[in-house]
Amino acid sequence: MKTLKVALIQLKVDKDKDTNVNRVINYIDTLINKNIDMVVLPEMFCCPYDTANFSTYAEYEGGTLFNKLSSIAKKYGIYLVSGSVPEIDSLGNIYNTSYVFDRNGLLIGKHRKVHLFDISISENKQFKESDAITPGNDFTVFDTEFGKIGLCICYDFRFPELSRLMVNSGAKAIIVPAAFNMTTGPVHWELMFKSRAVDNQVYTIGCAPSRDSSASYVSYANSLIVSPWGEVIKNLGENEGTCVCDLDFNYVDKIRNKLPLLKHRRDDLYTVSSLK
Amino acid sequence: MKTLKVALIQLKVDKDKDTNVNRVINYIDTLINKNIDMVVLPEMFCCPYDTANFSTYAEYEGGTLFNKLSSIAKKYGIYLVSGSVPEIDSLGNIYNTSYVFDRNGLLIGKHRKVHLFDISISENKQFKESDAITPGNDFTVFDTEFGKIGLCICYDFRFPELSRLMVNSGAKAIIVPAAFNMTTGPVHWELMFKSRAVDNQVYTIGCAPSRDSSASYVSYANSLIVSPWGEVIKNLGENEGTCVCDLDFNYVDKIRNKLPLLKHRRDDLYTVSSLK
Repeated sequence: MKTLKVALIQLKVDKDKDTNVNRVINYIDTLINKNIDMVVLPEMFCCPYDTANFSTYAEYEGGTLFNKLSSIAKKYGIYLVSGSVPEIDSLGNIYNTSYVFDRNGLLIGKHRKVHLFDISISENKQFKESDAITPGNDFTVFDTEFGKIGLCICYDFRFPELSRLMVNSGAKAIIVPAAFNMTTGPVHWELMFKSRAVDNQVYTIGCAPSRDSSASYVSYANSLIVSPWGEVIKNLGENEGTCVCDLDFNYVDKIRNKLPLLKHRRDDLYTVSSLK
Repeated sequence: MKTLKVALIQLKVDKDKDTNVNRVINYIDTLINKNIDMVVLPEMFCCPYDTANFSTYAEYEGGTLFNKLSSIAKKYGIYLVSGSVPEIDSLGNIYNTSYVFDRNGLLIGKHRKVHLFDISISENKQFKESDAITPGNDFTVFDTEFGKIGLCICYDFRFPELSRLMVNSGAKAIIVPAAFNMTTGPVHWELMFKSRAVDNQVYTIGCAPSRDSSASYVSYANSLIVSPWGEVIKNLGENEGTCVCDLDFNYVDKIRNKLPLLKHRRDDLYTVSSLK
């Protein structure tokens, strides 16, 4: 089977929405002759990550930004995992939402962040996402000609149950638009992507905004791709930039045969179940 | 609350059972004036790790070795997590079993390895534990005056469900007698102890035999203690030796308050359940 050529764009997030979208387009222009199949963007790639911004930047599904993203996917004939954006629904609820478009610009996946990030980052710094965001209630897997891919957003990935549910639904890679901070990033970011990859024998892909030390929330950055054996294949460090990597889903099967962790689970003794 | 002072003994496993037990006693003699509360031994600490050995070395619960271990705990007034030993039952089944004795030498915990290690280590090296061992069917948590502690054996720790079940039952530390090999050890050993610690906000403790390159199964060693924030506090490297570490269960609570992962699980959407 052909490999899936994925590109990450570790964007420097500007406060102007259109500036961000145009810079994504410029990056894809430079990447497209590398025969990429998929582009992944960071969490809140066109809205500086701050609870005060979410309602201002929020749009409906099917709104201007949604249509621009769909057009990008169609124009370039690529899958676009469009990071995440603030989405507002008809009741006025705002979600941290990731849309996935196929090569024709059709929506084939949508994930609303399930676990909201309410935390004391340091003694005098709090972040309470639930002040502005309503949680989603679903786990998300979408399909491609290469195989199934799981999708969750940042803090969602902290919870091993969610990865298991995605893998039980056939995911061979898990994509995570995310933005860890400078407290948890250095100790937990790479660890989490490596361990979820090894435990579930999947590729794991994290895409974050580049680091902006002047922002109210400083992203740890370090967008990365980890193999199902737990090796870091790419890591973009702290600055804005892109990388391209081949995901080989046959290699996933090879690892699952070599060390049959998924087969060796004791399904007679325990289970991870969705309650929905 | 007082901290739990735990000592690991990364033993070089000899083929003579009594030699191993006597060396454990000698080590405890040197450790006891450090006011230790608990000693942890490696997986199969008195039986070279080879499927061909398990039936030869196996004893009943309550047999000679069991009573010696109980006596050691009582004599020194310590908890003894006695690594693991081959246990035979009245039907002739053999288990990879860990006994835990309290300060009076009473059995307060017993874990039979649940997940058996059947794997191709390399192109021409197979290991099939299930040829000789019958799996256990329970997860295990025991109680102390410091708090509850989970217990599993080596390959069991690969399965995140088991750690979750132990933590749901109140475990604030998880002890794992284990013996990774030279293929999986360098990439997965420390990663696994760090990630289980961070995901579950517990201390994780691995105790392995020291490395013996002439053995049929070469232990990666690297016995270690990891904090609930994911920091490696101790790592014994490859040679025989011991280390002592204070486990502070108040610190576990502090981490769980600082980053409330366990509280933030979406119990309305998914669950990890025991099917027993």
